[in-house]
Amino acid sequence: MKRMTSYMHGYSDREAERLFDQSAILRQLLHSDVAYPAGSKVLEAGCGVGAQTVALAINSPAAQFTSIDISPQSLDQAKALIESQGITNVRFQQADILDMPFDDGSFDHVFVCFVLEHLDNPTRALVEMKRVLKAGGTITAIEGDHGSCFWHPETDESRKAWQAMIRVQQNLGHDPLIGRRLYPLLVQAGFEVKGVVPLWAYADASAPELLDGGINRILAPMMETAKEQALKLGLIDEATWRQGISDMRRASLPPDGSVFYTWFRGTATKGY
Amino acid sequence: MKRMTSYMHGYSDREAERLFDQSAILRQLLHSDVAYPAGSKVLEAGCGVGAQTVALAINSPAAQFTSIDISPQSLDQAKALIESQGITNVRFQQADILDMPFDDGSFDHVFVCFVLEHLDNPTRALVEMKRVLKAGGTITAIEGDHGSCFWHPETDESRKAWQAMIRVQQNLGHDPLIGRRLYPLLVQAGFEVKGVVPLWAYADASAPELLDGGINRILAPMMETAKEQALKLGLIDEATWRQGISDMRRASLPPDGSVFYTWFRGTATKGY
Repeated sequence: MKRMTSYMHGYSDREAERLFDQSAILRQLLHSDVAYPAGSKVLEAGCGVGAQTVALAINSPAAQFTSIDISPQSLDQAKALIESQGITNVRFQQADILDMPFDDGSFDHVFVCFVLEHLDNPTRALVEMKRVLKAGGTITAIEGDHGSCFWHPETDESRKAWQAMIRVQQNLGHDPLIGRRLYPLLVQAGFEVKGVVPLWAYADASAPELLDGGINRILAPMMETAKEQALKLGLIDEATWRQGISDMRRASLPPDGSVFYTWFRGTATKGY
Repeated sequence: MKRMTSYMHGYSDREAERLFDQSAILRQLLHSDVAYPAGSKVLEAGCGVGAQTVALAINSPAAQFTSIDISPQSLDQAKALIESQGITNVRFQQADILDMPFDDGSFDHVFVCFVLEHLDNPTRALVEMKRVLKAGGTITAIEGDHGSCFWHPETDESRKAWQAMIRVQQNLGHDPLIGRRLYPLLVQAGFEVKGVVPLWAYADASAPELLDGGINRILAPMMETAKEQALKLGLIDEATWRQGISDMRRASLPPDGSVFYTWFRGTATKGY
């Protein structure tokens, strides 16, 4: 169960709330081009608390989703969420993404979002996803890249706190800069890659709600999940950390605050 | 003539070549949405060697362009370029962007690209551009943000060399991270801002020419223009610099290289 405990952001209620906020804010951006035909069998590999599952199921009401996660606790939250929305086309199952209890070629499509960045061996996971995919089936992989993020005003302290968060995740053997290598990862796993595209979000004071939500409900809370480890590992001192978070939140304020982040969406097929 | 000599990238033939390469690679990205009506008077504020002028004039063949620059040497190159292309709707004039020899309200539109990042006081320049613009006229401002750039594989040395380049420009009192604050700059100058949008470029091994061009004909040569100052100012040692440039060029290679950069385009109007 190592992978469960090494999910950097942890399993707190506050983190679940952050994931739902993030999903609500990013739904249009991440999911607008993701829809599956009626009757198709879709695997969501690593559904977590179901933050993406809702959008997936609503966008493709006649597809049949199987959403797996290694964490029973997360699956319980995901189930409750889906039921509360009256969604009926999702089946949940506890499973290890590196050794899934499905036959070869079981699914028409695979969807994986914000998962590869948290794995010891993302290529092995992609190979396993390819195994359970039918020949000709597609994979859609969405991952962020924390090295893509910048904000204004950007102080030394806010940059140092952000970098400390990146180091904490790297220290777990995971890759918070994985977005930029999604293309080679998919190629390496043996997929025929259709393309990798950036899905960016930018906000300035002309969109004060997005600016506030992006910073105060996604980025700063995400940084907070790394604080304890960052201090424990000596990656940053507490005074700098506090100043850094405070400066990051300052970037959410009009008239001059702004923020940019990009995710990457890769689409690929399994050859015949 | 201070501003002439403090153009960070210098005035060499090699730099002119870089600017033309950059323009050719980025033309579709930067100019596809920029077109002016027949008969309109457009000021290009800071045309340099004419790298953007060609695209502007070709996209709006019936508009009348006045392209100014502080450097007579750059203007000579721009003139030669425009003549070589058979373009006839551009008039060049040597002028200081902070004190232009034009009456109030002389132009229907202003276009400024890759200029504000090199000025001591970009807000003052924008106010001067607003002065020569007619009420109801538009400004289109395009600026990069060097803090937006990342690549794979990204080594410590390549990041340090890139950061040293940023520091050289900041040391001149200019802002290579200006893209992220284009919105507040336009607001501060008194424009009615319609919006600021990222114009991103991403390349991986699926687009080997763009990947090679982006790194070996734009980014690495741009870094080279800062080398002498970076070493002189003690921002980096020569061994780290050399390794950094070499590592940056490595990111241009298949199968796993990738690169991302974003510019920002702001559009705004002068109120009545």
